[in-house]
Amino acid sequence: MKDLENLNKIFDFCRELDKEKMITRQTYLTDGKRKENDAEHAWHMAVMTLLLNQYSNEEIDVLRTISMILIHDVVEIDAGDTYAYDEEAKTTQREREERAAKRLFGILPDDLAVYFRELWEEFEEQKTNEAKFARTMDNIQPMMLNDATNGKAWEEHNVKLSQIMKRNEKTHCGSETLWEYCKEKFIDTNIKKGKIILDNK
Amino acid sequence: MKDLENLNKIFDFCRELDKEKMITRQTYLTDGKRKENDAEHAWHMAVMTLLLNQYSNEEIDVLRTISMILIHDVVEIDAGDTYAYDEEAKTTQREREERAAKRLFGILPDDLAVYFRELWEEFEEQKTNEAKFARTMDNIQPMMLNDATNGKAWEEHNVKLSQIMKRNEKTHCGSETLWEYCKEKFIDTNIKKGKIILDNK
Repeated sequence: MKDLENLNKIFDFCRELDKEKMITRQTYLTDGKRKENDAEHAWHMAVMTLLLNQYSNEEIDVLRTISMILIHDVVEIDAGDTYAYDEEAKTTQREREERAAKRLFGILPDDLAVYFRELWEEFEEQKTNEAKFARTMDNIQPMMLNDATNGKAWEEHNVKLSQIMKRNEKTHCGSETLWEYCKEKFIDTNIKKGKIILDNK
Repeated sequence: MKDLENLNKIFDFCRELDKEKMITRQTYLTDGKRKENDAEHAWHMAVMTLLLNQYSNEEIDVLRTISMILIHDVVEIDAGDTYAYDEEAKTTQREREERAAKRLFGILPDDLAVYFRELWEEFEEQKTNEAKFARTMDNIQPMMLNDATNGKAWEEHNVKLSQIMKRNEKTHCGSETLWEYCKEKFIDTNIKKGKIILDNK
């Protein structure tokens, strides 16, 4: 009977989780036709981790990293997506997400609630090598898509180079190699093309 | 320079991968408003694996299972989604997917191409405990969504109980507990509600 109670709770959470597919981000898919959602973003980051973990600065536990990635945006089901360059929304982000974590992970049986809460906290705190690599994926996946759509989201939001550099000031902490590669291929290229605005312009 | 060449190939593949977000399945999201896509489906299955692997019949390597899940539908980028109850499409499925695997995994550097190809083959062959559990997730995730939408996809396609039981004849191989739970909660309930057609009707 304990199994039944636990399974009911887990499936309640899994149905709730479905709402992550309805949280839209600012990044466009490679065809530029629509913006991607949180579930798609997490999946893309997770597959990229399977391919790119060899470039991590430090050796990482790939399962732990992918687990963190898979659930790092669950809180946005309640708190919504906070755009990386929306300074106003960012002031209330932590409080909104904290409340969301409490309600959402609280649906799960206690042991799993603690497990998911800890995964989320680990990502947020950015202390472990796994969290650092996960953050690197979180930053380069949308950068790759922005480049693939000719800077569409950057242009729409008039994003300046300084904002991108601030957003990415920790990207190298997960992987120097990937940061160097992405800076050149995705950022420098789009400066040259005029898709990223220089600050003195 | 080897790094640069490999990174170019990996990012080419990651951009190609984006198309999985454009492959629509027959299952509706819990709000019934639109059908889910392959990327969302894989993400959902992967998170469910983090929560449900404790119910696997045999002990499994969770990273291997999740890796398989994350990429099990990549071939559909070229081959399209084959609906579980479309018998005609299923006759050409293997050949279409085989061609897709060759082209898609072929974009990657050789070692990663072999790695992804083996993951995909392992899922297809259904011999390992990890592959069996992954298949169980592949079957119960849409079943959960079909139940949450009051059998919408089942009704639309006039799916009969015998078709669902055939589709699920191996679901128990990954987890007896989950199969029993899902059969009762999702299948039996929808037979009672008249959402799944009995074969003699």
